[in-house]
Amino acid sequence: MIELVGLDADDTLWHNEPLYTRRRERFHDLLARYEPEGVLDDRLYEVELRNLQHFGYGVKGFVLSMIETAIEITGGRLESADVRTIIDWGRDMLASPTELLDGVGEALEALGKQLPMILITKGDLLDQQSKLARSGLGHHFKGIEIVSEKDARVYTNVMARYGVPPEGFVMVGNSLRSDILPAIEAGAHAVYVPYEMSWIHERV
Amino acid sequence: MIELVGLDADDTLWHNEPLYTRRRERFHDLLARYEPEGVLDDRLYEVELRNLQHFGYGVKGFVLSMIETAIEITGGRLESADVRTIIDWGRDMLASPTELLDGVGEALEALGKQLPMILITKGDLLDQQSKLARSGLGHHFKGIEIVSEKDARVYTNVMARYGVPPEGFVMVGNSLRSDILPAIEAGAHAVYVPYEMSWIHERV
Repeated sequence: MIELVGLDADDTLWHNEPLYTRRRERFHDLLARYEPEGVLDDRLYEVELRNLQHFGYGVKGFVLSMIETAIEITGGRLESADVRTIIDWGRDMLASPTELLDGVGEALEALGKQLPMILITKGDLLDQQSKLARSGLGHHFKGIEIVSEKDARVYTNVMARYGVPPEGFVMVGNSLRSDILPAIEAGAHAVYVPYEMSWIHERV
Repeated sequence: MIELVGLDADDTLWHNEPLYTRRRERFHDLLARYEPEGVLDDRLYEVELRNLQHFGYGVKGFVLSMIETAIEITGGRLESADVRTIIDWGRDMLASPTELLDGVGEALEALGKQLPMILITKGDLLDQQSKLARSGLGHHFKGIEIVSEKDARVYTNVMARYGVPPEGFVMVGNSLRSDILPAIEAGAHAVYVPYEMSWIHERV
């Protein structure tokens, strides 16, 4: 019997990936005049992946990875005005409105009448707290768990913290890699709610 | 009667500010050849303060603030090799060993026999989790609370989460601004353990 529902936030409750996708496009435009060599997207993803262990998920790590990629791909010709532009994008992303997916408010309202819910999300602490506050959804949740990675061990710890056995827990999210497979590995249930796009790192 | 002890981490359990102080000095050296105008320390602190609300506490925000300050103070002459150097410092800081203050291991051992303890720290999620793991102190704590700010409301929430009344809680830390005054404002007790140096932002 299900006793507790865990919900992912980014691209499950609110739109997130489009924010990054738009910046990746502008990053292309910004660097076009340097006539960079190689495939920009591949280089950026390489740098992001290399930096994940150091900088973690979220906007600040993304900004640092864009700057590093830009320096590499322009062979050091990158001008500091462009570095500044990239940092400004970061501040914009962190301040941009949290747009809920259609029907999320109603769904949480209905689900909350049946079962207690917690939010489990990766990313920057301040960024995720701020998005949750701006979303107006905070009151639905019994607890907020902002974690640096989502693996089976993390789900096991969260379930223990709330005193729920794996068979009493269901995780809901848009990422097979972060929300579905590790929750199942931890013995819990999972509901996959695909989003229209996903970061290549979240694909399996 | 005290039922639960909250402990700060940076500069209470392990050295942290010296890591930043050393980088501020190298930042000076790095920019010296640009012959910057104005007082570098003041400018950096201004930018850090301006960015706190966007980027929060921690290494990544510090790195972004150093880059921005460097661009400003060199009038855009900053070379991308130096941007890269600053980003490399960030990775170094995030990977540098966690050096415990003298006697911390013994103190936690002794205290833990008397009372349950929790760790309450500001900063980047991944950074703080990683420092705690490297410190080898994690097993002492009943809970780890990584928060984006330490104010009376946050202390009230933490006490509620652990089911402890304010008069049953004592907060121990090196920052009057973050550890002592807000805990007292929330009705709890506090023990001030001064550290040899403090970031100007933590002074009252």
